[in-house]
Amino acid sequence: MTNLAQLQARLAASQYDAVLVPSSDEYLSEYSQPHDRRLAWATGFTGSTGSVIVARNGAGLFVDGRYTEQALQQVDAEAIEVCPATDAARLNWLQRALPAGATLAVDPRLHGEPELQRLIDDAARAGFDVQLDPNNLIDELWRTARPAASRASIFDYPIRFAGLTREAKIARMRARMMERKQDLLVVCDPEDVAWLLNVRTRDSVEALPQRRHVVPIPRSRVLVPREGAVLWFVEHTRLEPALAALMGDLIQLRAPPTFEDSLRQLATQRVVTANVRKTSYSHAQIVRGVGRLLHDTALTHARWIKHPNEIAVAREGHLIDGAAVIRFLAWLLQTVKERIVTEMEADEKVTALREQSKDYLGLAMNNHSASGPSAALPHYVATPASNRVINHHPVFWMDTGGQYAGCSTDNTVCFAIGSPEARHVEAHTLVLKGWIALARAQFPAGIHSTQLDTFARQFLWRQGKDYGHGTGHGVGNFMNIHEGPYIRKEIDHPLVAPMAAGMIVSNEPGYYAPGDFGVRVESHLLSVESGHPGFLRFETISKLPIDPRLVDATLLDGGEIAWLADYHEELVAAYRERLEGPVLAWLRGIADAFMAFREREAVR
Amino acid sequence: MTNLAQLQARLAASQYDAVLVPSSDEYLSEYSQPHDRRLAWATGFTGSTGSVIVARNGAGLFVDGRYTEQALQQVDAEAIEVCPATDAARLNWLQRALPAGATLAVDPRLHGEPELQRLIDDAARAGFDVQLDPNNLIDELWRTARPAASRASIFDYPIRFAGLTREAKIARMRARMMERKQDLLVVCDPEDVAWLLNVRTRDSVEALPQRRHVVPIPRSRVLVPREGAVLWFVEHTRLEPALAALMGDLIQLRAPPTFEDSLRQLATQRVVTANVRKTSYSHAQIVRGVGRLLHDTALTHARWIKHPNEIAVAREGHLIDGAAVIRFLAWLLQTVKERIVTEMEADEKVTALREQSKDYLGLAMNNHSASGPSAALPHYVATPASNRVINHHPVFWMDTGGQYAGCSTDNTVCFAIGSPEARHVEAHTLVLKGWIALARAQFPAGIHSTQLDTFARQFLWRQGKDYGHGTGHGVGNFMNIHEGPYIRKEIDHPLVAPMAAGMIVSNEPGYYAPGDFGVRVESHLLSVESGHPGFLRFETISKLPIDPRLVDATLLDGGEIAWLADYHEELVAAYRERLEGPVLAWLRGIADAFMAFREREAVR
Repeated sequence: MTNLAQLQARLAASQYDAVLVPSSDEYLSEYSQPHDRRLAWATGFTGSTGSVIVARNGAGLFVDGRYTEQALQQVDAEAIEVCPATDAARLNWLQRALPAGATLAVDPRLHGEPELQRLIDDAARAGFDVQLDPNNLIDELWRTARPAASRASIFDYPIRFAGLTREAKIARMRARMMERKQDLLVVCDPEDVAWLLNVRTRDSVEALPQRRHVVPIPRSRVLVPREGAVLWFVEHTRLEPALAALMGDLIQLRAPPTFEDSLRQLATQRVVTANVRKTSYSHAQIVRGVGRLLHDTALTHARWIKHPNEIAVAREGHLIDGAAVIRFLAWLLQTVKERIVTEMEADEKVTALREQSKDYLGLAMNNHSASGPSAALPHYVATPASNRVINHHPVFWMDTGGQYAGCSTDNTVCFAIGSPEARHVEAHTLVLKGWIALARAQFPAGIHSTQLDTFARQFLWRQGKDYGHGTGHGVGNFMNIHEGPYIRKEIDHPLVAPMAAGMIVSNEPGYYAPGDFGVRVESHLLSVESGHPGFLRFETISKLPIDPRLVDATLLDGGEIAWLADYHEELVAAYRERLEGPVLAWLRGIADAFMAFREREAVR
Repeated sequence: MTNLAQLQARLAASQYDAVLVPSSDEYLSEYSQPHDRRLAWATGFTGSTGSVIVARNGAGLFVDGRYTEQALQQVDAEAIEVCPATDAARLNWLQRALPAGATLAVDPRLHGEPELQRLIDDAARAGFDVQLDPNNLIDELWRTARPAASRASIFDYPIRFAGLTREAKIARMRARMMERKQDLLVVCDPEDVAWLLNVRTRDSVEALPQRRHVVPIPRSRVLVPREGAVLWFVEHTRLEPALAALMGDLIQLRAPPTFEDSLRQLATQRVVTANVRKTSYSHAQIVRGVGRLLHDTALTHARWIKHPNEIAVAREGHLIDGAAVIRFLAWLLQTVKERIVTEMEADEKVTALREQSKDYLGLAMNNHSASGPSAALPHYVATPASNRVINHHPVFWMDTGGQYAGCSTDNTVCFAIGSPEARHVEAHTLVLKGWIALARAQFPAGIHSTQLDTFARQFLWRQGKDYGHGTGHGVGNFMNIHEGPYIRKEIDHPLVAPMAAGMIVSNEPGYYAPGDFGVRVESHLLSVESGHPGFLRFETISKLPIDPRLVDATLLDGGEIAWLADYHEELVAAYRERLEGPVLAWLRGIADAFMAFREREAVR
């Protein structure tokens, strides 16, 4: 009997007609632990994001575009229908699958408040009844073979990497609470806790079987009253002794199961703030029941603005990481002349080169190593079944990143293998123009990240082309590789935010021709004061080369060509002491090609 | 005793410590009637938008940047403090002026629900108590000299101007309600009613004393149940007989004072939709008390997408209006060579030229005729006290518009008078580049209007410059000159919306150097299918010339120069049969100058 059939049998014996099972855990994590992968247990689908509604006689799995294909491969098509992850698709499925008046069980611990409220509203409108029930049916069924929860140790993240002391961060949040007459700050996002308390862990989730995708974020919560001790709800036994020794009057440890009681007690008749999008429906409702809950993202936004010390370490980390990627590129372009290289070998090779650095702590995400038609899938991960020979396709891109003490990296390099044709060069050049436009942009502090998205897309748009993913995302400091601000079209995306100096964001436009090829260029940008009061500009802090064979200089203007030439000169200077002779010579060759572009432009 | 002193005396005898008086009326209109100008009665401030909090011993007037100067001139500085119109400034004033626990009376009929909810939340957080009281203290005091409410007749807006019949529009809304299982659509925005029922009026509000700023929107509300009669709450006696004759089974007239009772009755235990931002707090609360209220902007968005018939009429209207403005420009540039012309004379002249058209129905807004330092104020209106001699300043701009059967116009022309200096030409050229970039943009349907804002600002931003107003707004069809979608930075602005084909929006970047000069260029754009599936582009439908003497061609690229040259050729072609010889010759001269730009560029 499959897990799904077990769940359906259990449903038939319950008061519910259907149950919603999300990928998220009680901490609303982007990457949940094996212990919490209820969605994978129920369906076999292992993507990081999605949800299933299981009815007694059917099931609808809701996944976003990057996971459609994977879902179709992983789930039993007889038993589970794969649908887009939109509110409308979910409602439509409910209406097709269930009679009016049916009840849907939802575990309110696993959903953010606004998201679940929307479901409740949609369902009510369509005549369904959402029953909130924290007695999760899967937890009841999933006894044997359930992986244990993580026991990875939690350690002090030293001030040389964290930038500011935990005491200073807490004092800053409290000063704000004082000024605004707020009594209690509820911090339910483990990323916010890790930042506030300067703590990290080394949980891992599987990427390739033999590689560790490191998730450095301990699952824990914090309550910050305006005065007195800060309460940290975390398993005491996971703390490394050195960290435990730092706890005391200011930060007191509490057992995680006591969180709700403490929350209720401290929130009673108080003004409470929380980032409600990262607070579970259960927790938000506890506060609303006894006190006054205000949505506030001040702590989250403070985390996204890096301290000068964090920035200094990140600059260095990006060069360490960049050296590994440049070594990879030089190796790849030489090796494909000599023999066959597959996507998976490339994937392994770049990781092996990163591992040569003593500062490297693991993968920041799955490696994406993509060639030919696979490269038209923006989130493609090579598997033995899909593994292409890179030599057989004109364009290859690779999107990878590492975790380092002090920074997280994430970059995409895109190079021609063999002879690219006009369509490859044109698409890459349009993508490159957008990438340069964002890298060179100057803009007022405080504009929303959505407005920056236009810089990167405008040249593709002019040709009626676009890409189906965001242009960029904030980047954590040995943390989640995805944080705010998100540079994307959706103005109502929870991670779209006002821009400030000190943010590190990715710049990753692309273009994908289904069944044919794809291109993407990605770097990390740091926002800095521009010199014009009130304006910001970017500095590209991940320094990786562009393939001049994929650039049509006639589509570039003089400013773009000059920028490219200067940028590659900077690369050569930055890596002069870091790269061995042949690799540096290869990089010098790239820089020379862009110098030649500039010289031709000067004559033109 | 001043009105303010009367109000303060009345307050002292009441249970309230302070009262909030907004500029808006019970229909949340942008332009309220003299009858409803409670804010002007209390303070003397006559701007279109603002609010005052009157306490027993003081008052704070909250106005946005364009009205600060006017407010300082109009109100008694001893009695009223002028503050910015932000939530923070309002809260700050309350905290300075009132003791903790003080009560603030608010008339819940005069505020949209989300806006008033925000005030209630802010006030509660700061320890104040908002008391909702529809027994408005000003209505009690303002007996003598209160202007009568408008009695202007309401007429049928014929199908040749409206595009679709009222029956078709109602059927479309009902089909959507059916599909979504909604029972009642509440339409409290008079602009939505005017669109849905194809009705208009000719209310006027004063602009210049001798000119009529026409507001064609009858104040009325509608209830659309899923079946049966549509109820229109309007004063029967104001309907022109021809319109009254069209009413019948489908649309039934109801007296406005019966609206609340009908709303309560029809909403009971029903799923009700409304654009809550344009629904008063009172009305929203009535629905919430008895049924389920969902925010829905479908009708409003449908209004913003013009029918092909509306578009055809608007094209013609923009040429009629454009001919008047071009005649004005030719007259101005000749006349300043012969004698002095003031801002107010220019203002009068353009209106007189518009009045020569039989289709002209009145001003769409105040005329803005601005020269020298006055032109650095984006919303400047010339008055006898401020009236400048245009001849004495190098740059003049004029932002004006007319109401016509079938369209509303709004455009800004900017011309050099005498010899512009490098800073004028550079600023104007940067503004022009943004204006061209938006006019030429191609973009995916469905992106939010905020993303278009970047096109117009990017070149100014690159120089550390910006402008403090939106880039554009939707434009009504013989309606409010300002409607959605708004092209501006604020992603949470209620009129920021997804772009669709058939929208008419303004394109009006500017630059303002305080105390020195200002430039602005404004046209109307129509969004159309671009030819690339899923993409839109714009067509500039208001055809007005650019001053070549204010353009530095070395700052333009070849595409921009070609676009400008083509655009001016189109102008000459469009007006060939419409303009008399000397004016056409003047326009031809402008087009020739841009042709010369193109020829020089070809050589370069």
